[in-house]
Amino acid sequence: MRVLLTIEYDGTDFFGWQIQPDKRTVQGELTAAISSLLGQKVVLHGSGRTDAGVHALGQKAHFDWDNPSDSFPLDKLPLAINTRLPADVCVKEAVKVDDAFEAQYSAKKKTYRYSFYLSRVNRPLLDRFATRVPYGEEKFDVERAKSGLRYLIGEHDFIAFSSTGRPVKSSVRTIYNATIERADNGVWSITVTGNGFLYNMVRIIAGTIVEIGLGLRPADAVCDALATGGRCFCGKTFPANGLTLINVEYI
Amino acid sequence: MRVLLTIEYDGTDFFGWQIQPDKRTVQGELTAAISSLLGQKVVLHGSGRTDAGVHALGQKAHFDWDNPSDSFPLDKLPLAINTRLPADVCVKEAVKVDDAFEAQYSAKKKTYRYSFYLSRVNRPLLDRFATRVPYGEEKFDVERAKSGLRYLIGEHDFIAFSSTGRPVKSSVRTIYNATIERADNGVWSITVTGNGFLYNMVRIIAGTIVEIGLGLRPADAVCDALATGGRCFCGKTFPANGLTLINVEYI
Repeated sequence: MRVLLTIEYDGTDFFGWQIQPDKRTVQGELTAAISSLLGQKVVLHGSGRTDAGVHALGQKAHFDWDNPSDSFPLDKLPLAINTRLPADVCVKEAVKVDDAFEAQYSAKKKTYRYSFYLSRVNRPLLDRFATRVPYGEEKFDVERAKSGLRYLIGEHDFIAFSSTGRPVKSSVRTIYNATIERADNGVWSITVTGNGFLYNMVRIIAGTIVEIGLGLRPADAVCDALATGGRCFCGKTFPANGLTLINVEYI
Repeated sequence: MRVLLTIEYDGTDFFGWQIQPDKRTVQGELTAAISSLLGQKVVLHGSGRTDAGVHALGQKAHFDWDNPSDSFPLDKLPLAINTRLPADVCVKEAVKVDDAFEAQYSAKKKTYRYSFYLSRVNRPLLDRFATRVPYGEEKFDVERAKSGLRYLIGEHDFIAFSSTGRPVKSSVRTIYNATIERADNGVWSITVTGNGFLYNMVRIIAGTIVEIGLGLRPADAVCDALATGGRCFCGKTFPANGLTLINVEYI
């Protein structure tokens, strides 16, 4: 039986998703917990990797459960796995999927959120899940930032918004939605939904949009980046701690 | 010159506010940072202690700065102190106050927030600043909780809502405001403003109000607790991690 898990984690103390020898990783912790619970060596296939320090509210991963006991209802599986997991990762849901289903290749949409706050002093209550931008709030023009985000929507070659290091066949992706909003605690969130993302793409989008909002770049720098592929039109790659994988959708 | 500081901290890795030998405390870290910056041994007087694991968005503390240099503007003091502080505590503001001002005794109002979420699984992205209540969201009746909170408002003897261990002259306090609301991420916040709080008072209020919301106690258990002083009418003392000192007011 193929099982799809929904997983939440605080990425701060993980060396990312992907299993590595002698490193504490999300995939590693989950694989050990599920294997020991079920008494069989499972192989967990994630929807994609997340880097060291990146969080997830709704990461997805599948595995094949050989000869599951009929007496073990699937809706009890998350609680059973969680008793074997550390506090910074948990399984929120387990559902049966078709044998042809693949957490990575069946994915239709992913949503990421990048969180930041504007402050000249650091904010201990915000730093874990949001990146500090060392400017005063009054320097940030959200309408400029929104103009930049609007240029991202649609099908484009996002090569300018990617870091080298992970070769891909194509750097064309479609962005369906890109918004920015501010919570009562002063944290700004850029939320981006697309059919896929290149390496570091959301962190570079965040760096670019924040620089646009601060008036350090024109909003149409996004157009130049998309048209030319020039990394120089984009902003910094923002730190991992502000990034959260919100959701992966399959339909 | 007497200086009043506004301080934010993530209490997770501190043994509380109060300085103690060989323990990592907020007062200890701040005293060391300020003393080394100013080159004089300062004594920092907080508005009150917070326990191990309790957070602060707006703790206040004063100290006397002997012979401050005229060339050191007070609005630059926070940044200068922060360069000597670890990442989980920061000074947000420094203002000059009257020599008769006392961070503790001049305080007129304090506001605390208690945060919790209702879930059968733990939530790694929420656990740092909110306590998990292991019931489904559908079990919680916010209108019942609000009824319980309304009974707290006014001047009462809150002895039932306190833990033993710190003797006080009087256990009469005034609560000006007590509200509950739910954020988009599912975290509920009970916010209470009063002229002062007994030891563990907000954590016992939170435990009581949550049990009322879950139907485990009647809302008028609050009245019985206030009228009789009986701890048995109150709920559990909720854990420290959900508590945040939001603000201390002096006027």
